[in-house]
Amino acid sequence: MNHKMIRYTLGVILSFEAVFLLIPIITALCYGEWDALFATLLTAAICLAISLPFIAKQPKTTEVFAKEGFVIVSLSWIVLSFFGCLPFFFSRSIPNFIDAFFETVSGFTTTGSSIIPSVEDMPKSMLIWRSFTHWIGGMGVLVFVMAILPLSGAQNMHIMRAESPGPTVSKLVPRVKKTASILYLIYIALTVLMFFMLVFDPGITVFEAINTAMATAGTGGFGFRNDSMFSMSSYVQIIVTVFMLLFSLNFNSYYLILKGKIRDAFNTEIIVFLCIVVSAIAIITADVYLNNSLVSPSGEAINGSFGNVLKHVSFNVGSIISTTGFGTVDFQHWSALSHFILIMLMFCGACAGSTGGGFKVSRIVILFKAMLREFGNLIHPNQVKKVSIDDKPLDNSAVHSVLTYLTTYVFIFFGSLLLLFVGESVFNPGAVDPSANFMTNFTAVTACFNNIGPGLEAVGPTQNFAHFSPVGKLILSFDMLAGRLELFPMLILFTPSTWKK
Amino acid sequence: MNHKMIRYTLGVILSFEAVFLLIPIITALCYGEWDALFATLLTAAICLAISLPFIAKQPKTTEVFAKEGFVIVSLSWIVLSFFGCLPFFFSRSIPNFIDAFFETVSGFTTTGSSIIPSVEDMPKSMLIWRSFTHWIGGMGVLVFVMAILPLSGAQNMHIMRAESPGPTVSKLVPRVKKTASILYLIYIALTVLMFFMLVFDPGITVFEAINTAMATAGTGGFGFRNDSMFSMSSYVQIIVTVFMLLFSLNFNSYYLILKGKIRDAFNTEIIVFLCIVVSAIAIITADVYLNNSLVSPSGEAINGSFGNVLKHVSFNVGSIISTTGFGTVDFQHWSALSHFILIMLMFCGACAGSTGGGFKVSRIVILFKAMLREFGNLIHPNQVKKVSIDDKPLDNSAVHSVLTYLTTYVFIFFGSLLLLFVGESVFNPGAVDPSANFMTNFTAVTACFNNIGPGLEAVGPTQNFAHFSPVGKLILSFDMLAGRLELFPMLILFTPSTWKK
Repeated sequence: MNHKMIRYTLGVILSFEAVFLLIPIITALCYGEWDALFATLLTAAICLAISLPFIAKQPKTTEVFAKEGFVIVSLSWIVLSFFGCLPFFFSRSIPNFIDAFFETVSGFTTTGSSIIPSVEDMPKSMLIWRSFTHWIGGMGVLVFVMAILPLSGAQNMHIMRAESPGPTVSKLVPRVKKTASILYLIYIALTVLMFFMLVFDPGITVFEAINTAMATAGTGGFGFRNDSMFSMSSYVQIIVTVFMLLFSLNFNSYYLILKGKIRDAFNTEIIVFLCIVVSAIAIITADVYLNNSLVSPSGEAINGSFGNVLKHVSFNVGSIISTTGFGTVDFQHWSALSHFILIMLMFCGACAGSTGGGFKVSRIVILFKAMLREFGNLIHPNQVKKVSIDDKPLDNSAVHSVLTYLTTYVFIFFGSLLLLFVGESVFNPGAVDPSANFMTNFTAVTACFNNIGPGLEAVGPTQNFAHFSPVGKLILSFDMLAGRLELFPMLILFTPSTWKK
Repeated sequence: MNHKMIRYTLGVILSFEAVFLLIPIITALCYGEWDALFATLLTAAICLAISLPFIAKQPKTTEVFAKEGFVIVSLSWIVLSFFGCLPFFFSRSIPNFIDAFFETVSGFTTTGSSIIPSVEDMPKSMLIWRSFTHWIGGMGVLVFVMAILPLSGAQNMHIMRAESPGPTVSKLVPRVKKTASILYLIYIALTVLMFFMLVFDPGITVFEAINTAMATAGTGGFGFRNDSMFSMSSYVQIIVTVFMLLFSLNFNSYYLILKGKIRDAFNTEIIVFLCIVVSAIAIITADVYLNNSLVSPSGEAINGSFGNVLKHVSFNVGSIISTTGFGTVDFQHWSALSHFILIMLMFCGACAGSTGGGFKVSRIVILFKAMLREFGNLIHPNQVKKVSIDDKPLDNSAVHSVLTYLTTYVFIFFGSLLLLFVGESVFNPGAVDPSANFMTNFTAVTACFNNIGPGLEAVGPTQNFAHFSPVGKLILSFDMLAGRLELFPMLILFTPSTWKK
């Protein structure tokens, strides 16, 4: 293993983090938040001090293989989160270190699960740092580094593959560095467009518009009002709905649209994704409308006209399937049918190559086709068929990888849920009403592992994750990282043979 | 497709069903249950009348390929259940036809989910027919037919494969017919042994001992007392616990033990199975003992001494993982941790080649090893490794099949759960308390699909399945059949290309 290159890349990441901290530093200066300013400056200084010896000399062999790619990506995200939580901790905005770490992992992984009961009491610089972690985490910090630094060499594809969401990574252009730049340019352009569309509304401040744009772009979902998006105007809510869905689509499609290949842009995955969104909105709207179960975050029944129900259901469906996690109404009050569909959307997630999390629509499409092929093989054993998507046949090994991905996903999901149940029973008995305990733990893991944000019951849209034990918070942090990095990088970190010489 | 052979086999199955009905006919005669006697005789007459034209002449080509194997198995089970429910319907013991069908599917698939609120009011002949359907369904009716009739030809392996539970079927001896006979002899011997150990107890009648032995052997779980096994003596409860676990083991292992190959008998699957059982008993016993949550079926707290808790937890863990579904205490009152472990056991299920249902331990072992191999391939891409179990390497295509099995399992599970949620919302709103709705539907599908019996909340151990709409009952019947026949036979029945010429 190329240890030198791993150390060097981690150093680079850490120095980038010091640069990222300029955003909260400037905000703290603007708003005169001196505690937060001191905490952030101190963190930036620590990051620089630690990183400088590592980046002083680029290693001679910059070759990076698959194994190093995974290790670099997983360690980078842990290091980013560890140092990224220090401003919260030093400024006493989040006095408990585990809580601060959980919040920062939740930020970078674009989960948006929070342990903060009242965000309106937080310093503005800390709020913008939270939203900025979403924005950085959305497209991936190593993709960002690759877009800027001349680290290259064909081997960098391994890093890009390990960090990008989805079953396969396609290079838009032959060079990895160029691909990374194009993706980031599209990302920045969409974020800026959204910001300008938001500030148009008199009910939202510039500060709020920046936060909203960054948290939506990363499909993160950290808010800055205690009622999340409920008190926003319908205009803002609709803009956010549309952009949550736009950021759930494969960014390659935007590139294809820019190239004029409109038909290629609307591939199978995007069509299936849009069908799922429309069906979910239709069923839940009918359900909520007929049961008259539209309830504000403070628990009051609100205007249940068809239009209003449709608007709020679309927002929340978009928020869940895009794995953003913003909320307008309290869907805890919806029926079991709607809860079930929301949970299915949580597992489904967004498109590959987007900033969203979850299992990814393209994987579901591949699994469905693999299942149909198995039927075909059983009925006609002598016919050899390949699974193909968008008229392109898929390698058997690619199909095999997706099948194994599902297996690994199921093992991690049930394994961490079991650990959470046991951990909370031992270290934290009675924290949650016994009748709500099952759904709380089940949806907490579902929401963290798929990088959504809120779940149901004691982690519902109006609740938070503060009540978990430190052990529970670490298990959920692992789930968030494993979900964002698509399982293998995190697991490989815990595999002994990775570290054998 | 060999239509003649399909029709012939269905005819044979139907004539066998007429013979099976001798058991309730004799029972009805003994107890003077004239309505039930008439209903059963009428059903037997109908079965014979319909089957005779089909079995009059054996087809010239008895060749059966994989596709026919699946179709024969799935149609046989549907035909068996359809005609098998007529005694309940004709005798008015279950006046609703859909209910009678659900109950019979639940019997043959060894699920044990019931729509009967009070089994003690049922005629004894109907109770023994219910238990007998478990016994027939446990080892498989086509395996039985193959053991008796000279249908053979090497092609019959396809039928055996389609009906036997587990990822792979190994012939104990070269001839399929001989293998089927050996399996049935072991099955009969164990059932008879259990019967004699039960009648030893003065608290159980001969009738009850026969029912208990047959329902345990098939890992079915239909009871004959309203409190299931609660009012039985500790001796009976312990005997049932032990035999539920014995019937969950691969029957090949019994053959190996008889051949003196004791070490081979304790293969990886059985060791993993026993580890899961012991761990689950340990965790749940601690949980129930510390929370003092041992509650009788009638809702009263009972003696929570460590020994008593251990006995009842062992019984219920054995009952769930063996997918039997007998109950002693009401585990609805246990904590969320225990509920979660019970649900995991429901999905896990018994060993391959046993009479139990669920996903099967051997598949979990194969999936786990396939996942580890994927890690290995990622870390060392040039190393080509095979998945091996008990030092025998597995074909890549066998591993691929298990991976696809998980995929299909997940699709059917979520698909039928979605249909059940929508169906119950539309046709049956308000049947269940809204707060219990989610767990009711979720565990109903879990319990039916894995052939367990009881779930939680409104389908908990002291409840029944009567409250579902007819549509819901048909969806759950499909799940029971799909679970027992291991997915593909039922799915292939609904695939249009199966029926193309």
